[in-house]
Amino acid sequence: MLKPLYDNVVLKRKEVEKKTASGIILTDTSKNTPSIGEIVAVGNGKLVEDKLVPLTVKVGDTVVYKEYATTTVKYENEEYLILCESDILAIIE
Amino acid sequence: MLKPLYDNVVLKRKEVEKKTASGIILTDTSKNTPSIGEIVAVGNGKLVEDKLVPLTVKVGDTVVYKEYATTTVKYENEEYLILCESDILAIIE
Amino acid sequence: MLKPLYDNVVLKRKEVEKKTASGIILTDTSKNTPSIGEIVAVGNGKLVEDKLVPLTVKVGDTVVYKEYATTTVKYENEEYLILCESDILAIIE
Amino acid sequence: MLKPLYDNVVLKRKEVEKKTASGIILTDTSKNTPSIGEIVAVGNGKLVEDKLVPLTVKVGDTVVYKEYATTTVKYENEEYLILCESDILAIIE
Amino acid sequence: MLKPLYDNVVLKRKEVEKKTASGIILTDTSKNTPSIGEIVAVGNGKLVEDKLVPLTVKVGDTVVYKEYATTTVKYENEEYLILCESDILAIIE
Amino acid sequence: MLKPLYDNVVLKRKEVEKKTASGIILTDTSKNTPSIGEIVAVGNGKLVEDKLVPLTVKVGDTVVYKEYATTTVKYENEEYLILCESDILAIIE
Amino acid sequence: MLKPLYDNVVLKRKEVEKKTASGIILTDTSKNTPSIGEIVAVGNGKLVEDKLVPLTVKVGDTVVYKEYATTTVKYENEEYLILCESDILAIIE
Repeated sequence: MLKPLYDNVVLKRKEVEKKTASGIILTDTSKNTPSIGEIVAVGNGKLVEDKLVPLTVKVGDTVVYKEYATTTVKYENEEYLILCESDILAIIE
Repeated sequence: MLKPLYDNVVLKRKEVEKKTASGIILTDTSKNTPSIGEIVAVGNGKLVEDKLVPLTVKVGDTVVYKEYATTTVKYENEEYLILCESDILAIIE
Repeated sequence: MLKPLYDNVVLKRKEVEKKTASGIILTDTSKNTPSIGEIVAVGNGKLVEDKLVPLTVKVGDTVVYKEYATTTVKYENEEYLILCESDILAIIE
Repeated sequence: MLKPLYDNVVLKRKEVEKKTASGIILTDTSKNTPSIGEIVAVGNGKLVEDKLVPLTVKVGDTVVYKEYATTTVKYENEEYLILCESDILAIIE
Repeated sequence: MLKPLYDNVVLKRKEVEKKTASGIILTDTSKNTPSIGEIVAVGNGKLVEDKLVPLTVKVGDTVVYKEYATTTVKYENEEYLILCESDILAIIE
Repeated sequence: MLKPLYDNVVLKRKEVEKKTASGIILTDTSKNTPSIGEIVAVGNGKLVEDKLVPLTVKVGDTVVYKEYATTTVKYENEEYLILCESDILAIIE
Repeated sequence: MLKPLYDNVVLKRKEVEKKTASGIILTDTSKNTPSIGEIVAVGNGKLVEDKLVPLTVKVGDTVVYKEYATTTVKYENEEYLILCESDILAIIE
């Protein structure tokens, strides 16, 4: 199991059907290309001075995140992304 | 539904009639091209040390914002923008 | 009405007679070209940690400001500038 | 009257006789060219968190300052400089 | 023995079998090439203001870290890496 | 008299005999060329939030400092340097 | 004697036998070339807000440090390095 540190989270990238009417289609208007993933693990909290502030996102959340700052890790034949919570823009509910 | 994180907000871009006398016309004098949008969702608050400070803007506000730092997301056939509240300059009342 | 956020202010640029003896003439000696404007709206305060600190400038003040960081907005046939209070150098009394 | 904001001050540049034996002669050894001026107005204080910390310099002080970060303003036929107190290096007593 | 300072840790790089089905395979999608190592020593804590905040990682943890910011030290015929805890992304459990 | 502001100090450069056996010889191994001077005036303290923290160096101290960030001022036929205390590396006792 | 200020330390570089089996051999994998030295003097503490936080390293410690940010000073025919404690990676015990 991958256990992220501090305000890092582990995501599983979601395949986005680019043409489905009711789906989400992401278009980049700036340098940040957003993507969609499901959170599979969250860190122990953001270190602010000497306190750990729990993250807002939870395991199971589907989120829109900025692709550019992620690190890809293949673990037991699955591909995961590790990124900082501040690179997550929104939760899809 | 798109639920933005922290001090992010979700906007719906407003069409601005560039030539209407009583409307708002935006002209860029610097590198920041301002645009107008309506807020459809606001984040859970700006994280300042270990507190969440609620945002000033509310759902339904029409705002002038800086275009350059937004991320476009298409969701259920509608196009939305996600941006940080600090890139919003003013509310139009 | 344009209601600026946080430490932003809305200005109306003032025409400066460049050659009037008793007027103000602005000369740029550096990259910052200063200009003169009248404040028509002020934000709800600068966010410092979790407090809103009221601005020093008030509606009606004539101020010297740095031109380069402003955003121009045309609203009901009038042109306004939105800028941050920290780009205002002085009040002319 | 020019009333500077926060930690800005208004200066009147002093003519420095470059060759007078007892005078001050400024030589730039780095990119900062120092100059001499007299303070004619000081701001209402440096904003530190939510407090205004009074400036150290006072009206009438003759100071050595870094030229590069000043803004020149001509007001009632006199030329003034506006700069931040942190660009003042020393008071000449 | 190498005793790291503050929030530095000493790692021993782990050989990763790039093709084993159940192993971890690391692929770089960005400029950060992640790697795997075992922690052999941790610093006395991150200095936050005047307090030392203990690290989250412990001796014996297998971690995913960003390769680019490490310093290699050969000590008694073994090669070690010294890096800051903030360059560790996750613990593998 | 030159009275430096805040954490600035005024120095008088010391001639260093480059070849004297018991003297100090300074060699630059990086971009910072260190030099030696005697402190002739110290500022009223470093402004930290709203407090003035007194400097560590005192008038009369001989110090090693980084040359690159100094400003040279000629005053009553003597040449002085003004620099920030953080550019002083050590006191020679 | 060289008495470093704040979080600076004075080191004496150690000759490292590059080929001795039980010695330490340093290899640079990044831009930081680490080196080994013995601490001969430590500063009066790191200034954090208005407090001096004592350093972790002590006189006599042998340390691994980053070469690139040091200043070389020759004093009474000995060559010393002055560097900030944050550029020290580990103590060798």
